[in-house]
Amino acid sequence: MDKVIAEDTGAFYQHYPELGVVVTAQAGGKDNAMAVAWHTSISRKPPLYGVSISPKRFTYQLIADSKEFGVNFLPFAEAELVAAVGGSGGYEIDKFHRFNIARDKPVKTAVPILKAAYAAYECKLVDDKLYGDHRLLVGEIVAVHLLREAFTPEETLDLDKVSPILYLGHELYVTTSKDIRYLDREVYGKH
Amino acid sequence: MDKVIAEDTGAFYQHYPELGVVVTAQAGGKDNAMAVAWHTSISRKPPLYGVSISPKRFTYQLIADSKEFGVNFLPFAEAELVAAVGGSGGYEIDKFHRFNIARDKPVKTAVPILKAAYAAYECKLVDDKLYGDHRLLVGEIVAVHLLREAFTPEETLDLDKVSPILYLGHELYVTTSKDIRYLDREVYGKH
Repeated sequence: MDKVIAEDTGAFYQHYPELGVVVTAQAGGKDNAMAVAWHTSISRKPPLYGVSISPKRFTYQLIADSKEFGVNFLPFAEAELVAAVGGSGGYEIDKFHRFNIARDKPVKTAVPILKAAYAAYECKLVDDKLYGDHRLLVGEIVAVHLLREAFTPEETLDLDKVSPILYLGHELYVTTSKDIRYLDREVYGKH
Repeated sequence: MDKVIAEDTGAFYQHYPELGVVVTAQAGGKDNAMAVAWHTSISRKPPLYGVSISPKRFTYQLIADSKEFGVNFLPFAEAELVAAVGGSGGYEIDKFHRFNIARDKPVKTAVPILKAAYAAYECKLVDDKLYGDHRLLVGEIVAVHLLREAFTPEETLDLDKVSPILYLGHELYVTTSKDIRYLDREVYGKH
């Protein structure tokens, strides 16, 4: 099958699906939550997590002021919440109030942690750099909140207990299949 | 349900699953392919893509030398290939030869493009920065290879045609479910 070769990225959804997470922040008595699909782990030791955010966002201002952010991983049943925080602006409304978002208490920062999250990271900002039309915010994870029963003893997500939110682009959401394959890299790497 | 709060990240799989991609590079007549789960889009204009790689990897040396890398998105049927390149070292073996990996021709760089990929990015390195135990490599996408029939007219992945590779950690791979939800942020953001 022939492939198309393009010099522009088009709708730029080739690298989706990605976990649709909620990034949270607070500063000066205000807080906010936004939907983010551009995020990744960057380092294991120390544990660093990166989120790419437009500097136009209210959440960015809060993070720039407080030097802290939260990353919240929600189950598929909460996909509407991701769409809601993704479709509203923190400059205009108080999203926590409007969407009646329940919280857990943070322990190492003051960032809002979503009660509905099966896992959440509290991060202290260690870098903030402009790349094109976004800023890459890198945070050190200083505390992890997790629902123990959502994970296997090996600490991978237990898909019988929790279905993650995968954002496909264009307002489309899916989750994972139930069929898991175990492919030991040590075995396959020796083929 | 009570949550556990930890100050260390444990096995560090809370933010999985993630697309398991193959990053490729070449320099000085050598090439390599490695499995990467830590990657994200960073900017739309210009289109920038980031991959987090240990500087110990042969692929890192090739990218540092050539200032180019490829990001290859493979269908679930090729998950063994991801495990194979993930379980072998480019300093020891020629992975393209050993695993008989077929290629497409790159158009704007000299990076290997995997024929089995339903989408691939050719990237020119624009930044290379140490964060903890990894280096974040940021590349500008200068060409996109894509299998047109793998995508919908809106350019999102057509899950009836292609199932992506999602890495869950600990050598476990899943793909997406078939049930897609459309949640228009403009509607949900006004609730």
